[in-house]
Amino acid sequence: MDAFVFHNPTRFVFGPDAEARTGEEVSKLGIGKVLLVYGQGSVVRSGVLARVKASLDAAGVRHCELGGVLPNPLSGLVYQGIEQAKAEQVEAVMGVGGGSAIDTAKAIALGVRYPGDFWDLYAGKAQAADGLPIITVLTLSAAGSESSNSSVITNEQSMLKRGTRTEFNRPRLSLMNPALTYSLPNNQKANGVADMMAHIFERYFTNTKDVTLSDELCEGTLRTIITAGPKALAEGESYAAHADLMWAGTLAHNDTLSPGRQQDWSCHGMSHAVSARFGAAHGAVLAVLYPHWMQHQLDHDVARFERFAVQVMGVDDTSGDAKSKAEAGIRALRTFFNSLGLPQTLSEFNVQEKDLEKLTDEAPYSAQGTLGFFRPLDRADVLAIYRAAL
Amino acid sequence: MDAFVFHNPTRFVFGPDAEARTGEEVSKLGIGKVLLVYGQGSVVRSGVLARVKASLDAAGVRHCELGGVLPNPLSGLVYQGIEQAKAEQVEAVMGVGGGSAIDTAKAIALGVRYPGDFWDLYAGKAQAADGLPIITVLTLSAAGSESSNSSVITNEQSMLKRGTRTEFNRPRLSLMNPALTYSLPNNQKANGVADMMAHIFERYFTNTKDVTLSDELCEGTLRTIITAGPKALAEGESYAAHADLMWAGTLAHNDTLSPGRQQDWSCHGMSHAVSARFGAAHGAVLAVLYPHWMQHQLDHDVARFERFAVQVMGVDDTSGDAKSKAEAGIRALRTFFNSLGLPQTLSEFNVQEKDLEKLTDEAPYSAQGTLGFFRPLDRADVLAIYRAAL
Repeated sequence: MDAFVFHNPTRFVFGPDAEARTGEEVSKLGIGKVLLVYGQGSVVRSGVLARVKASLDAAGVRHCELGGVLPNPLSGLVYQGIEQAKAEQVEAVMGVGGGSAIDTAKAIALGVRYPGDFWDLYAGKAQAADGLPIITVLTLSAAGSESSNSSVITNEQSMLKRGTRTEFNRPRLSLMNPALTYSLPNNQKANGVADMMAHIFERYFTNTKDVTLSDELCEGTLRTIITAGPKALAEGESYAAHADLMWAGTLAHNDTLSPGRQQDWSCHGMSHAVSARFGAAHGAVLAVLYPHWMQHQLDHDVARFERFAVQVMGVDDTSGDAKSKAEAGIRALRTFFNSLGLPQTLSEFNVQEKDLEKLTDEAPYSAQGTLGFFRPLDRADVLAIYRAAL
Repeated sequence: MDAFVFHNPTRFVFGPDAEARTGEEVSKLGIGKVLLVYGQGSVVRSGVLARVKASLDAAGVRHCELGGVLPNPLSGLVYQGIEQAKAEQVEAVMGVGGGSAIDTAKAIALGVRYPGDFWDLYAGKAQAADGLPIITVLTLSAAGSESSNSSVITNEQSMLKRGTRTEFNRPRLSLMNPALTYSLPNNQKANGVADMMAHIFERYFTNTKDVTLSDELCEGTLRTIITAGPKALAEGESYAAHADLMWAGTLAHNDTLSPGRQQDWSCHGMSHAVSARFGAAHGAVLAVLYPHWMQHQLDHDVARFERFAVQVMGVDDTSGDAKSKAEAGIRALRTFFNSLGLPQTLSEFNVQEKDLEKLTDEAPYSAQGTLGFFRPLDRADVLAIYRAAL
């Protein structure tokens, strides 16, 4: 286990009707006015936004709003939100929706307090030194942004999708009602399952030694997702399954499962390039790429992939040698994603062979020209994984 | 899963030499003067206290100190600490040691801001409405007080041992260096193992339905403790084993593993009476009582004890019917505690048959006259468990 600092100050209010407690909980934080950020209107149609506003009104918390966030959210709305938040002198920014609405809220909250162009923080040119408080009302179990220190935005000019991590991104308060996720289409629920599993994979496949406890926590959460995911698709109003998924999605990305482990975000980096260029859903791209990343990295640490196969994917521990069990685990993961109706190839997003060089160029390489740490990927590795996934 | 509010704002600085960062981290909180609370001098002899003070000095944080906390800490020193903290106008109280030092620090921190007798908060006569910030430097993996919302004090007059739970008890900052626990005697390490396992048991044996995810987290942490505990006793300087135990002890009692579950603190309540009257170590008493509590409660939910046996204690799932597996799990727990050198009977604390009625009287019953929720214990149950454990 590596040395670590862990600080997760988000207050979670979790359960049926959590959103109805928004006003009361925001009031406790001493916040008098918020900017509500949401997407393309599903929270309007479902009545969630109205309930949140009614709750704020009842508690005397003033609010203004900014809708129209797209999946793979764009920088343009962030600039607009920063201006609005300044003009309206809001004291906090609240994302109502899934990761896109929340990540946009985070970018606005950072941008209001950053003297330059907010994109500097995402382009790696500057680190946030302050931010408005962030609040979330979650309607989609996937991105984990309701408690993570990260947010991801796509620049409209360059079409580069980039993330920033800072403690100022941690929401102060997240209101989580699993029942709000019942009505999502199954493909969105499946994307969410793939996204939260990927968040755990980025932590699970590590070079850090002596990580027994966090291995156990990662594996137990993955097993829960593998059980709850299909159930949530099959039983659209199972509170138990949707609650397990919602809380698992939070734990998957707020470091509860993983303090003291070196992480590897190469697959996320590769997925961002595809999402930005082809408008592909983040979770769906991860479902395509991850089995190929695993196959490509298998020989780096066969024992870890074997452990994954046996402990997470249910491969029989007596079924063969380490490598064959490891490969069976990867196949089982593919089969699982397939069973949820997730795509299996990049072609399904209209990616073609001719696009692969460009995608390879656009991955967020380190200064050393590599991605990730488990076995760092160079450009040839990235291209090979994209090609295998085509 | 029940509805829940989860808020764990402790900042953890974990790793070798964590205590040397005390001053820097306290400074970041804007705290200018602290009261250092510690026990009977082991932190003086080991040099830990000197390193903490040097770190505070280097950061310009002033400090005063109060030593002499006993195991099963007493109210007298709390009153003294409250007066000292007020006279010295400290801005925070820092426990340097294990649960006893930290719980005393917590009681002082609450007491300074409570207008009446601090014991009211422990006697259930009042709820804390404020408290000084609490900081901990942990030297013993056991009580989980470095992040929990609880503290436990024994009243010197009545010899009643009572706890209070409040969000004001959550430390703001905990500095955790596993190497500080290397030098503890094995019986203290074993007591710590039993204590942290008991904290998980109090959450694991629940009537709440649909708790798949938190069952997984509880079970994985218990398995880790069962592996790391004997290793820490056998290999006195294994960083890996001591680090797993230290972090497991924190997770065991700060609700990370268990949001949305009804908890049952009956065994803790029964243990407090024995500790207060017989000066017995908390963890050791729990190791004696828990297998008997399990046997007494077995028929209330055989399936849960069966799951515990298979998932945690390694009982072969094909080895018999549910009840025989469940009983094998309880026997395996006894065997495990025994292997750590923990006591097996209350007689080992000099408890005699004639004491059992008195102990039964002193358990912290609810207004309904019962202990716990899993299957609430009445006085006859409590007496029966004590007698079985004699």
